[in-house]
Amino acid sequence: MNDFSFFSPTRIVFGKNALESIGSELGRIGCTKALIVYGGGSARAAGTLDRVEASLDAAGIAHVELGGVRPNPEITLVREGIELARSEKVDVVVPVGGGSVMDTAKAIALGAVYDGDVWDFFVHRAAPTERIPVAAVPTLPASGSEASNSSVISNDAEHLKCGINTDLNRPVAAFMDPELTYTLPPYQTAAGAVDIISHVMERFFSGEPAVPVTDHIACGIIRSVIECAPRALAQPDDYDARANLMWAGTLAHNGLAGCGVNVPSSRDGDWTCHGLEHELSALDTSITHGAGLAVIFPAWMRYVWREHPERFLTFAREVFDIKAVDGSDEAIEDAVTATIDELQEFFVSLGMPRTLGAFDVHEDDIERMIPGLTLNRGEVFGSFKQLTLDDARAIYRSAL
Amino acid sequence: MNDFSFFSPTRIVFGKNALESIGSELGRIGCTKALIVYGGGSARAAGTLDRVEASLDAAGIAHVELGGVRPNPEITLVREGIELARSEKVDVVVPVGGGSVMDTAKAIALGAVYDGDVWDFFVHRAAPTERIPVAAVPTLPASGSEASNSSVISNDAEHLKCGINTDLNRPVAAFMDPELTYTLPPYQTAAGAVDIISHVMERFFSGEPAVPVTDHIACGIIRSVIECAPRALAQPDDYDARANLMWAGTLAHNGLAGCGVNVPSSRDGDWTCHGLEHELSALDTSITHGAGLAVIFPAWMRYVWREHPERFLTFAREVFDIKAVDGSDEAIEDAVTATIDELQEFFVSLGMPRTLGAFDVHEDDIERMIPGLTLNRGEVFGSFKQLTLDDARAIYRSAL
Repeated sequence: MNDFSFFSPTRIVFGKNALESIGSELGRIGCTKALIVYGGGSARAAGTLDRVEASLDAAGIAHVELGGVRPNPEITLVREGIELARSEKVDVVVPVGGGSVMDTAKAIALGAVYDGDVWDFFVHRAAPTERIPVAAVPTLPASGSEASNSSVISNDAEHLKCGINTDLNRPVAAFMDPELTYTLPPYQTAAGAVDIISHVMERFFSGEPAVPVTDHIACGIIRSVIECAPRALAQPDDYDARANLMWAGTLAHNGLAGCGVNVPSSRDGDWTCHGLEHELSALDTSITHGAGLAVIFPAWMRYVWREHPERFLTFAREVFDIKAVDGSDEAIEDAVTATIDELQEFFVSLGMPRTLGAFDVHEDDIERMIPGLTLNRGEVFGSFKQLTLDDARAIYRSAL
Repeated sequence: MNDFSFFSPTRIVFGKNALESIGSELGRIGCTKALIVYGGGSARAAGTLDRVEASLDAAGIAHVELGGVRPNPEITLVREGIELARSEKVDVVVPVGGGSVMDTAKAIALGAVYDGDVWDFFVHRAAPTERIPVAAVPTLPASGSEASNSSVISNDAEHLKCGINTDLNRPVAAFMDPELTYTLPPYQTAAGAVDIISHVMERFFSGEPAVPVTDHIACGIIRSVIECAPRALAQPDDYDARANLMWAGTLAHNGLAGCGVNVPSSRDGDWTCHGLEHELSALDTSITHGAGLAVIFPAWMRYVWREHPERFLTFAREVFDIKAVDGSDEAIEDAVTATIDELQEFFVSLGMPRTLGAFDVHEDDIERMIPGLTLNRGEVFGSFKQLTLDDARAIYRSAL
């Protein structure tokens, strides 16, 4: 087992009445004025914002709001939020929405107590040392941002999309009501499920050591998503299915799934597939992150599994009950291939694409993704298997 | 899925160099003077105290110490520690040892900032509102106290042993080096493994809802203990086996294993078996907690399984790959019985006792345990199945 550290201080309040305790909980930790951050009008239309505001009102916590967060959230709105947070003297930021909304709130929370421009943190010109607390109301099980240390923000003017990982980014609390996810479109539900599974796999396939307790937990989270995502698609108001997806989404990305497996020098996982997908979404911003991962991950797996076949055999056994019939190279290859096939078929069964062609991405697009990949990941990347830009080209090509 | 809250803020530093970062980590959070708490001389003899002190010295953190914590730790030493913490103006308590040492440190940390007598908290005459931080160095994988909300203290003068559960009891950090457990006697290693499994089972068998993500995690933790405990017994310096047991011990008792299964009104689990074992240890203080649980838990399982057979079938399938051949009552009973048998045989294979007779506890001792049980649990208890004192008598009798 590799050395590790684990820190997940977010207080989770989970269930049908979670939103009603926001005010009392924030009051308990001394908050007096909240900046509520949200995206489009759906949080208002669904009544979620009203419930959050009512809970804050009941606890005597004042609030202002900032709407309009878009997918691939942009630094301009973050800066606007920082101005608002300062001028209104808010002492807590409350995102109500998905990963983009939560990441925007985290950036505002860091920037509100920093003298310079918050973008400095994202390009590593400065390191944050404090923040105001974030208390999240996630409405989409996918990003795991409600307990993660990560925030990813785009800068349109500079054509950049950058992330910062710091424990300061971990929300102090998350109020999670699975009923809020009943109205998610099937495509978003499915892409969210792939994102959750990918967060676990980036960690599971980041190093070589077998760590039974972490491996069982990681594969158990994946199995629960495989069991519950089809149920949520078949019956959108299946509370238990939605609840399991939502809790799995948090645990997939709070660090638990990589303890002792991750190479200590890595970024809490391998993250090559996220890197490859990142460039795909940059090429065409209409590509949903989870849908891109559904294409990229199986392609990466087929390319790298020979580096540590024993990891794939563990995954095969624990997730799909697939075992190699004997220890021969052929039997191992058969078992691994069957496992990757089954995972990909599961993604496809949810309505996710199988190839880059489904996104209208073709051979001649590959070179257009390489400069961004080089900028974001360098010329060599990956902890499970070290890859070069030529390897990246080959993986993209295999997914066409 | 039942509503739940989850809060596990302890920062875990895990691995071969964990102890060396105590000073820097405590310095980072502003600590200036530590009270080191330990038990007998083994922490000194093994060099563990020296390593802790060296790390504190290097970070410029002053320290005083208090040794002599016994099993079933007593309130007198807690009061002594509180006096010391106050007179020396310490701002962090650092237990180095097992559950008794950590529980003592937690009680000192609560009492040091309370005007009355700390025992008030344990008999619910007062509720704590603050504490000084605790940073734990666990040396025995069993209690999970390094991340739990619990502290259990004995009061010899009043013939009481009482616990207090509060989030204030959760250590701010735990520094966990599996190598510290190489020298544990086999019986302690085995009893610790049973205690870890029991902490998960108290939660797994606390309610009836199937919660795939939590069930997979819970059963995965148990499987990792079943895999690794025999390895640790066979080769005491098997690092990976020791490390898995140690991390499993933390996750078994930080609340993760019950999310959504626990009945919200329960105490984060059923805890009947802990209650029944508590009286056994009170009858004969030489009985190791985990060894008592190895006898009590299978007896309880045989007594209650018909209340929610489906929970036992899930456990059977996930932990032991045992399935009922069909849905008939007979097939279900066969599968459940085989599962409980297999669990009990596992405990016995570790060197744990099978019956109360092994502790020289017999039929006429049963009535002697009932008054304590009544005092601590009342006349009716249990969330998986509500039990009476006559049920308790029957369970004890079945384990003779």
